[in-house]
Amino acid sequence: MNSDSYPSQILANAVREFAQLPGVGKKTALRLVLYLLKQEKNDVFRFADSLRKLREEIVYCKSCYNISDTEVCQICASPKRDHSTVCVVENIKDVMAVENTQQYFGIYHVLGGVISPMDGIGPDDITVNPLLEKVKAGQIKELIFALPTTMEGDTTNFYLYRKFSDTNIKITTLARGVSIGDELEYTDEVTLGRSLINRLPFEKTL
Amino acid sequence: MNSDSYPSQILANAVREFAQLPGVGKKTALRLVLYLLKQEKNDVFRFADSLRKLREEIVYCKSCYNISDTEVCQICASPKRDHSTVCVVENIKDVMAVENTQQYFGIYHVLGGVISPMDGIGPDDITVNPLLEKVKAGQIKELIFALPTTMEGDTTNFYLYRKFSDTNIKITTLARGVSIGDELEYTDEVTLGRSLINRLPFEKTL
Repeated sequence: MNSDSYPSQILANAVREFAQLPGVGKKTALRLVLYLLKQEKNDVFRFADSLRKLREEIVYCKSCYNISDTEVCQICASPKRDHSTVCVVENIKDVMAVENTQQYFGIYHVLGGVISPMDGIGPDDITVNPLLEKVKAGQIKELIFALPTTMEGDTTNFYLYRKFSDTNIKITTLARGVSIGDELEYTDEVTLGRSLINRLPFEKTL
Repeated sequence: MNSDSYPSQILANAVREFAQLPGVGKKTALRLVLYLLKQEKNDVFRFADSLRKLREEIVYCKSCYNISDTEVCQICASPKRDHSTVCVVENIKDVMAVENTQQYFGIYHVLGGVISPMDGIGPDDITVNPLLEKVKAGQIKELIFALPTTMEGDTTNFYLYRKFSDTNIKITTLARGVSIGDELEYTDEVTLGRSLINRLPFEKTL
């Protein structure tokens, strides 16, 4: 679509802003903008304000680096959570995924990425040092590595593992295996192999 | 996804705003919001401002009802356009589509909808009366109906046609036929039939 044919510069600006979002093309952007144009003024203003606030007021928790409305996030501030168990994740979405299980009662540490020499991301570019210091402080008994099963994730796992090998902290990682509901014939061989090696006493699954 | 698991209320608000857009679900909304969170502050503020401006400053051209930054839109205000030919379209996107052809030099009239008794949309709910008055003013020589080929579009065409049948205005409609590049075997029979009935002298297509 020729951008010259937008009937209004203000419209063209709004379309351009939407179109820079990932996965949003010019046609979709135009559709969204025309939708907003038909909404109540206050609704659109509330939308605009929510964006402004998002960037202005959200902070990163100074303890776990999760995003938060307050200096220390709700999870880190909660006395109900087990502060001796730390789940190490790559990003905020992973925190949300683990929280959604309602099976985890420890705290988190958000690395904000994984070590990736190819992309020029080293340990200093992610929050590895704050984790080291947190561990040094001595309260932590177990670190759960919940990083992606990619080469970068494995590199990061290994790097962290080595850093903590001289401490007496328990280091665990998420169990990998056949998903519940998945059929064996469609499971990739690495996952199925891992499921066999790490097989469990049947009583444990009851 | 459980909304309780958003780590921040401000984040949850922004996600909710995005998720009310058509075709945007909660997961997509979260992806977009996390993307914006990583952008420069000024970029996000510019985005927010563009939305506010969109709803605050865009007006409808008082002549053709196209959206515009000014009281009268650029097309209606242009002395280069043929003000005796009016292309009647349903909405703003149609204006943009016709403009993109670069084959039309008249002006437009945006109805803002089509007559649809099923949806309770009558002639008074769209800009039919302003069109009647524009025609009465006497400058217009040709009306081109470029409405959708739906029952509602046809109803609107017919309604308008009857309104203007006692004037000596030329009333035309878009040619319907096999698209350029389309294969006959995949063309629906109504379109192909119309193409045959309205066949043209070969010289005209040269």
